Amino acid sequence: MDRINIHIRDLITSYQELNPSTIPELSDPPSALEFMRYAATNRPFILRNGAADFPAVQKWNAAYLREVMNDAPVNVAISAAGDADSVLERPDGELWFIKPCEVSAPFGAVLDAIQLQEQDAGHTGPVLYAQTQNDNLRNEYAPLYADIPPTIPFARIALQRPPDAINFWLGSARSRTALHRDPYENIYVQVLGTKTFTLLPPTEAPCVNEQRLRAGTYVPAAETQAEHEAEGPPAAVYPTLDSPPASIPFPTWDPDNPAVRPSPYSHLAWPIRLMLRPGDMLYLPALWYHAVAQGNGNEGISCSVNYWYDMDYSGAFYSLSGFARGVGLASMGREEDGGFIDAPAT
Amino acid sequence: MDRINIHIRDLITSYQELNPSTIPELSDPPSALEFMRYAATNRPFILRNGAADFPAVQKWNAAYLREVMNDAPVNVAISAAGDADSVLERPDGELWFIKPCEVSAPFGAVLDAIQLQEQDAGHTGPVLYAQTQNDNLRNEYAPLYADIPPTIPFARIALQRPPDAINFWLGSARSRTALHRDPYENIYVQVLGTKTFTLLPPTEAPCVNEQRLRAGTYVPAAETQAEHEAEGPPAAVYPTLDSPPASIPFPTWDPDNPAVRPSPYSHLAWPIRLMLRPGDMLYLPALWYHAVAQGNGNEGISCSVNYWYDMDYSGAFYSLSGFARGVGLASMGREEDGGFIDAPAT
Ligand SMILES: O=C(O)CCC(=O)C(=O)O
Ligand SMILES: O=C(O)CCC(=O)C(=O)O
Repeated sequence: MDRINIHIRDLITSYQELNPSTIPELSDPPSALEFMRYAATNRPFILRNGAADFPAVQKWNAAYLREVMNDAPVNVAISAAGDADSVLERPDGELWFIKPCEVSAPFGAVLDAIQLQEQDAGHTGPVLYAQTQNDNLRNEYAPLYADIPPTIPFARIALQRPPDAINFWLGSARSRTALHRDPYENIYVQVLGTKTFTLLPPTEAPCVNEQRLRAGTYVPAAETQAEHEAEGPPAAVYPTLDSPPASIPFPTWDPDNPAVRPSPYSHLAWPIRLMLRPGDMLYLPALWYHAVAQGNGNEGISCSVNYWYDMDYSGAFYSLSGFARGVGLASMGREEDGGFIDAPAT
Repeated sequence: MDRINIHIRDLITSYQELNPSTIPELSDPPSALEFMRYAATNRPFILRNGAADFPAVQKWNAAYLREVMNDAPVNVAISAAGDADSVLERPDGELWFIKPCEVSAPFGAVLDAIQLQEQDAGHTGPVLYAQTQNDNLRNEYAPLYADIPPTIPFARIALQRPPDAINFWLGSARSRTALHRDPYENIYVQVLGTKTFTLLPPTEAPCVNEQRLRAGTYVPAAETQAEHEAEGPPAAVYPTLDSPPASIPFPTWDPDNPAVRPSPYSHLAWPIRLMLRPGDMLYLPALWYHAVAQGNGNEGISCSVNYWYDMDYSGAFYSLSGFARGVGLASMGREEDGGFIDAPAT
């Protein structure tokens, strides 16, 4: 096992030696071939102002969103403290993977609630984040879809596929998306406010201290349930274990809070941080770990759009990444079957 | 360790499930972007007749080569049985990595000797193979360089670099190149006779049973040394250990002789075989294991040209491939330092 530890360390450090520790900022959109070189090496880039000419970037503000969406029902994720889909440490020390309370509410009420939670510095109620990640911009938010291009040309030509999902994100500085990864090539566009990404490459899987956690969900507090059904978002939520019981392997180490729950490899990680402002575009390659914090714009909201293109499972990258994850877990005595948290969707 | 074995098996089989077990044959040269997709996924392809319009393919034969090269001195590799740069099992069972006797001789004499060794079915003398792999086509064989394009356009545009080496290979069915791998993107062109490749993807590194072997070299037999210095190729060679002593890690399992020296993972390998005929072009991606056998054309020779482009060490592929190799070795109790047999040339 000692020898395995050495190889894991070598993997992490050799990647760091062979790759820049910063993200390039392109001044012009890449050609499809240039984009393919980034995708081939699974390396991110930022295109500052790359989306400056999207109608969304030019037109969207709170009033416009309210006018276009009106009272259309949308799904909103509600958590106790902006911590949906993340690790929750219970009073007894047990870690849960906690999912949000999902509620359907009129868009106007959701936007109001998000803006209100920001205006009140002492806000203690639950935190809302519209972040369904289910292609919502071509469904629930269809009235806004006309304001963005239906695909990103360099990505579509290079990857030879349409986006699998186009997502709309509306939240505020109270929410933070916990470190995780997705089997998607991600083109992420900031529209209002800011987003700050903390990134780790796939070779640093052994750093994230992935553990299998019991799954829980935020549910409306009993006394507020009637109220909630009547008028939208509940006034309080509390965590409860899923039934039937479920569990999920999830990173428990966070590079932005590195002293908490490190794995034996976490100290080797080289997190990369970057901030997107309105009009900026990020290419976040498949299987990169990312945690995402938000900064409010002058209307107290942060709004983004992103395009998820299915990753290519062929070639060696996907299999080798799963292997690195699996060997890392095995070296820490964790007994996940197979190396693949991000199984192909087939 | 048991768990590690399972992850190694999963790596090998998941790659096989996610990738075709055959090599595509393209009917037209790929665009740079299409080529980049193959390079990105580290997947080979064949372009049948892809080099049919190279002057080399149209003009080369024994007489032409003899005329153009005349008596220019060339370096030729001489082995006892066509087994240069391969594993030699000694009478006591020890395995050596044996390198050829390298001799400079007039091209005409080398070509004569190669053709003669094929005409005599009972030939028992040493076997010649002109295969210096040191950019010889732009040096020793410069008079022939005009007969091939200086680069392969789709590869140059996609990879953004000129070839690091262009090599000329002249041998016969008596030689076989042992299973190995190179840190190069390889565009291989067959000109005369045939070559049959046996391939394993980089994920099958644990199958090749790499072992650190003492290094040896074929040297001219003492009684023939004088003769050799006088008139070119020696009449006999025998293996001798290098001094100072040296060792090299090298695959000891051969998918074309699978019962001999298998590793615990060799039975999982899915070797891919393909034959190139005059005018055919192969893209052999970096770090693929390849063994290469030759078939004589009607003049008793096999002749090829290939372009080596440096591989891209950035991204995760190189680091992850080294990791798979290293973990495989560690799981078999082998103690190589680091995972990288193919260290960057820097
Ligand atoms: O914007 C966020 O809060 C998270 C974004 C994300 O996880 C993604 O785009 O995959
Ligand atoms: O043609 C041969 O004998 C071997 C070719 C080879 O190993 C290569 O092109 O890398």
